[in-house]
Amino acid sequence: MPNTFGHLFRITTFGESHGGAVGVVLDGCPPRLELAEADIQRDLDRRRPGQSQLTTQRQEEDTVEILSGTFEGRTLGTPIVMLVRNKDARPGDYAEMKDRFRPSHADFTYQSKYGIRNWQGGGRASARETIGRVAGGAVARKLLREACGLEVVAYVKQVQDLMAVIDPGAVEAASVEANAVRCPDAAAAAAMFERIDQARRDGDSLGGVVEAVARNVPVGLGDPVFDKLEADLAKGLMSLPASKGFEIGSGFGGVLLRGSEHNDPMTLEAGRVRSRSNRSGGVQGGISNGEPIVLRVAFKPTATIAKEQDSVDESGRAVKLAAKGRHDPCVLPRAVPVVEAMILLVLADHWLRHRAQCGA
Amino acid sequence: MPNTFGHLFRITTFGESHGGAVGVVLDGCPPRLELAEADIQRDLDRRRPGQSQLTTQRQEEDTVEILSGTFEGRTLGTPIVMLVRNKDARPGDYAEMKDRFRPSHADFTYQSKYGIRNWQGGGRASARETIGRVAGGAVARKLLREACGLEVVAYVKQVQDLMAVIDPGAVEAASVEANAVRCPDAAAAAAMFERIDQARRDGDSLGGVVEAVARNVPVGLGDPVFDKLEADLAKGLMSLPASKGFEIGSGFGGVLLRGSEHNDPMTLEAGRVRSRSNRSGGVQGGISNGEPIVLRVAFKPTATIAKEQDSVDESGRAVKLAAKGRHDPCVLPRAVPVVEAMILLVLADHWLRHRAQCGA
Amino acid sequence: MPNTFGHLFRITTFGESHGGAVGVVLDGCPPRLELAEADIQRDLDRRRPGQSQLTTQRQEEDTVEILSGTFEGRTLGTPIVMLVRNKDARPGDYAEMKDRFRPSHADFTYQSKYGIRNWQGGGRASARETIGRVAGGAVARKLLREACGLEVVAYVKQVQDLMAVIDPGAVEAASVEANAVRCPDAAAAAAMFERIDQARRDGDSLGGVVEAVARNVPVGLGDPVFDKLEADLAKGLMSLPASKGFEIGSGFGGVLLRGSEHNDPMTLEAGRVRSRSNRSGGVQGGISNGEPIVLRVAFKPTATIAKEQDSVDESGRAVKLAAKGRHDPCVLPRAVPVVEAMILLVLADHWLRHRAQCGA
Amino acid sequence: MPNTFGHLFRITTFGESHGGAVGVVLDGCPPRLELAEADIQRDLDRRRPGQSQLTTQRQEEDTVEILSGTFEGRTLGTPIVMLVRNKDARPGDYAEMKDRFRPSHADFTYQSKYGIRNWQGGGRASARETIGRVAGGAVARKLLREACGLEVVAYVKQVQDLMAVIDPGAVEAASVEANAVRCPDAAAAAAMFERIDQARRDGDSLGGVVEAVARNVPVGLGDPVFDKLEADLAKGLMSLPASKGFEIGSGFGGVLLRGSEHNDPMTLEAGRVRSRSNRSGGVQGGISNGEPIVLRVAFKPTATIAKEQDSVDESGRAVKLAAKGRHDPCVLPRAVPVVEAMILLVLADHWLRHRAQCGA
Repeated sequence: MPNTFGHLFRITTFGESHGGAVGVVLDGCPPRLELAEADIQRDLDRRRPGQSQLTTQRQEEDTVEILSGTFEGRTLGTPIVMLVRNKDARPGDYAEMKDRFRPSHADFTYQSKYGIRNWQGGGRASARETIGRVAGGAVARKLLREACGLEVVAYVKQVQDLMAVIDPGAVEAASVEANAVRCPDAAAAAAMFERIDQARRDGDSLGGVVEAVARNVPVGLGDPVFDKLEADLAKGLMSLPASKGFEIGSGFGGVLLRGSEHNDPMTLEAGRVRSRSNRSGGVQGGISNGEPIVLRVAFKPTATIAKEQDSVDESGRAVKLAAKGRHDPCVLPRAVPVVEAMILLVLADHWLRHRAQCGA
Repeated sequence: MPNTFGHLFRITTFGESHGGAVGVVLDGCPPRLELAEADIQRDLDRRRPGQSQLTTQRQEEDTVEILSGTFEGRTLGTPIVMLVRNKDARPGDYAEMKDRFRPSHADFTYQSKYGIRNWQGGGRASARETIGRVAGGAVARKLLREACGLEVVAYVKQVQDLMAVIDPGAVEAASVEANAVRCPDAAAAAAMFERIDQARRDGDSLGGVVEAVARNVPVGLGDPVFDKLEADLAKGLMSLPASKGFEIGSGFGGVLLRGSEHNDPMTLEAGRVRSRSNRSGGVQGGISNGEPIVLRVAFKPTATIAKEQDSVDESGRAVKLAAKGRHDPCVLPRAVPVVEAMILLVLADHWLRHRAQCGA
Repeated sequence: MPNTFGHLFRITTFGESHGGAVGVVLDGCPPRLELAEADIQRDLDRRRPGQSQLTTQRQEEDTVEILSGTFEGRTLGTPIVMLVRNKDARPGDYAEMKDRFRPSHADFTYQSKYGIRNWQGGGRASARETIGRVAGGAVARKLLREACGLEVVAYVKQVQDLMAVIDPGAVEAASVEANAVRCPDAAAAAAMFERIDQARRDGDSLGGVVEAVARNVPVGLGDPVFDKLEADLAKGLMSLPASKGFEIGSGFGGVLLRGSEHNDPMTLEAGRVRSRSNRSGGVQGGISNGEPIVLRVAFKPTATIAKEQDSVDESGRAVKLAAKGRHDPCVLPRAVPVVEAMILLVLADHWLRHRAQCGA
Repeated sequence: MPNTFGHLFRITTFGESHGGAVGVVLDGCPPRLELAEADIQRDLDRRRPGQSQLTTQRQEEDTVEILSGTFEGRTLGTPIVMLVRNKDARPGDYAEMKDRFRPSHADFTYQSKYGIRNWQGGGRASARETIGRVAGGAVARKLLREACGLEVVAYVKQVQDLMAVIDPGAVEAASVEANAVRCPDAAAAAAMFERIDQARRDGDSLGGVVEAVARNVPVGLGDPVFDKLEADLAKGLMSLPASKGFEIGSGFGGVLLRGSEHNDPMTLEAGRVRSRSNRSGGVQGGISNGEPIVLRVAFKPTATIAKEQDSVDESGRAVKLAAKGRHDPCVLPRAVPVVEAMILLVLADHWLRHRAQCGA
């Protein structure tokens, strides 16, 4: 359903960017997991605006409150509600958008679908909605780390045509956080920083690619036929604002190879079945094979820009529109923790699903 | 759930490639739609193996039988079951695979997950499973054509590095069917045919890209937040065997542009809000905006090849493996109707969902 | 899923009785419905404890806050979150229950299932959880009243062996609210009041039956096979704390009749198909037939009583237990608005489902 | 969704009584369970018409075929399709019902909802639909017996005012099958037989109550809040054709007691927490407590009778109607295996759900 993701480990997010609050209900989490606000806040702080000059300057503390589902620092097995109050709401910045549609944004489609919209900042289409995803993902992270040492690391792989060189098998979370771009290739990060900052000064925006890896994934997660692991990952990541593409393993580049070149040769390593290459990206037949899951998400340049654009208004007149105040020149650095969250949510869900059917 | 796709217009597929039958239960179809076996058979015949030398030579008529859900040629509003008996089952061809895992195939992961597998032809991981999808998609096609003149056309856009030039706004279904490759660019099709046939002779396989367009899509289909139209399309298409990537509109290429270049300028055309370009690919904020939906799916080269490969067997010994008998050098021509089916299923589902919530 | 009810008009409740808050996420509500806190508060006030000497004396204002999903007084089509903070939490009253299980309560089963429980007041098993149901039901009430003039009225029909005489076809909401028992038969209400008050003085509790009627239900709501209207109503009402039985129309009494006596003769009335009797209770084959839906729910006497009882504690010793402080001698008067809410939620859901599949 | 029941152990039934076939897709069954047609046929034979003079004389062998989901006699973890072809279709018997609505049957409501119906025998509203339930329940029975020795026994407790005396804690399946009424109290069974046979001769029908017990149910099955075990049981049983009431444990009779009389005193027995009485019926707070689950379902007398009744036809004229040919004087004996199936399906589903969330 529209605002719910997952089947057994399941989140429902709620809240408009300029309503009272945004948040999430997480249902299905196993009981007795140690959980405190600090576990959540860590990831929320990575998603928060205003971390550097590269992001929107909206000032929000985004302090999370756990309203239910825990007792004496542990989960109860009941719904965990995590809430963040909206504070820095400046609807005035959006007055111009009250009856004008931002090109390539959700303004026109929401208005057409519902006959009403919260024009103050995008409503549900705002990146603020992802707070609930990150909060839910933080719980999944803790659960899977304890259950099987699983870890997920995402990072900026590409900004426009600037490509970083990163080994998904070895990249560390700390190196991602080492710079404002969240690109662990320091040289590429510096060039990306410059490029984004220039776009910011131009009132324009840039797109790029976030890559992510999940390591220590147990063999056997994912369900044929429709709930293949890559299908659920694709859904989760293509549900992110501004995403336009998804690939796993060899992806679009893999089509250039012949089968004999593309197949991952199987081998035995310390008594365990492994593959010598990983063009499969950690999934075969929709089920994890124990190799690292490697995927990439393409994000278009943000639609809301300060440059003037051609648009129409609600009464059907051609108008000009330029965003005032806050404007995010590149969504990628802040998208990194959200990408991680979606992957973690998918894996936690399938971990429970596998346990249900196969008792593992 | 694993074998179910869709929420209101919903299919559940069943059947192994070498069990008694494969098929689908379609639940939620509106009543009083005219429907006969011939409506289904047309698309099944496009998916059937043995159509040309490019595909696997398994000989199956794949004749569909409607077991329930219709009465006097019209749908009842009850579950429609469509069944295809398995006929050309030659389990002997698979004897070698009984305890050997095909590299990059589902053999190892199924065995690891379930502790059992139908090794005769891939079981649920077989392309035969897509028969149920195509049957369900054929009903969706009929429903949406009558409801709003909606049409979906898919075609082979790329084989290895061979790229076709096709205008998604104008391409006709008939031109797709004009050659065995299902590529409406005749010159490219001829080159692709040669390339695939060479791979066949080499006992090898090729991958590529299928592109698809949906036209006359009503404004307003798709649900924020998780069930964005592109998210559900991505899930549906990434659930296809051998798919490794998905993109919509500008996709991965769109990351090269700045926001001011990427945004689709809005304009009025005959009183209707349109966009002058379509980098959005027909969706904005997860909701259709009335422009054609354009998407692409990357398929890796098929894993099952006649060339000898390194593998392991169930007891953990290194072995060599080469497929006998049937072998599909390129899955793309037969994937075309399956891609169309998945898109139609997603759109039919969201058409009903929109009607439920917004009464449209 | 555990904390979610409904398919298209769908609530997820959350919150423990002694956590930070209780509340509900309502997803799927059509857009542009006028909605304010006052619409919700009205029904919450009927559910609130402390209304008369018959109910638990816990003092809670239960003031609802709408956190999301509305804009300028109308619904947006996005999730509506309604929150009530817990205030009168006196965990001290529950100290004795920390390691002692109340007989016939959820203490032992929660502890066995989860290995942890919030022992302060019952956690999710508390009647406080029903706040979210009532809030969601209030929105359903408004939606259905505007859509088709539908109304639902529940009332206390029986307390122990005291039976009221009430005509479900004519009973008015105002007469239900006319006394503290919520029984519109004034004479019976007076006797029930005495009986309940005596139980209160004895530190004991009473059970009974709530009857409800839904009028102006459109023909055609309900889905064969598993989602028959009576099946969904049964599920909703049997999910209420302390409910032990459900019946619709003739119910258990109907088994005494022969088919020729039980069948409702069909007739035409002002051009409309009606039935001359209503032993069907408004549903036939799981689908509403336009007659009033009449049902009854049996509630056992509340488990928590002030009288001393035999129990065991967590370490497995036989102990005695008597509830301190608050104790609810009869749950029925406060169950009345909750029963109405569940019926309204089921009907709103099926109203949307019918619109989706049949376009009505 | 309409034709699907269960969440993890999940059936989708399909088929009209006079279409090509009826059957079921069972999804979510754990792999490696031994399963053959004989396991299913046993319960189907108990449901089959024509077993005695008490049931409808329709002659159907109802031979089940497993189409998918097993391999070499064990389940694969993939969807199990079980199919029964319709054979004894005599649509002529229904010619009169083509445009006449049977009173208290689904004819009018189906026609109103869908604008079309299969008038040959009731379509989906036919008791034939329950074949799929029984087939699914037979798999659940096998799974739960092996997993935890769980067993479910149902029997006819009451026909009209004739009540049997049966101890749910001790009743054996064999004694249920000892007579045509499926009432293990032989004296009551004889009286019931006479009563039903008289109704048959009168062209009339009788209702009654089926009671059921589940023993060896593990502690901890059932989910707060909406998916309480009794709520899911109520939904499953109230979805059966002709059911009008459901109760668990003390049920409607329990409202006569005070809390101090109704509460089940807790005690320790061989180191295990038990209750000295079982008015809870095996569930507390929606979760199984390890005591036998005891429930009852009220079935109204069948609507289709040979006696002439007042009705209307599709064009809105008052008509008389009397069923020809087959007519079932009492649905109870054949409802017994269906009641067992629904209970088993609910328990299997919650057994998997519990394993998912709590790892038990």
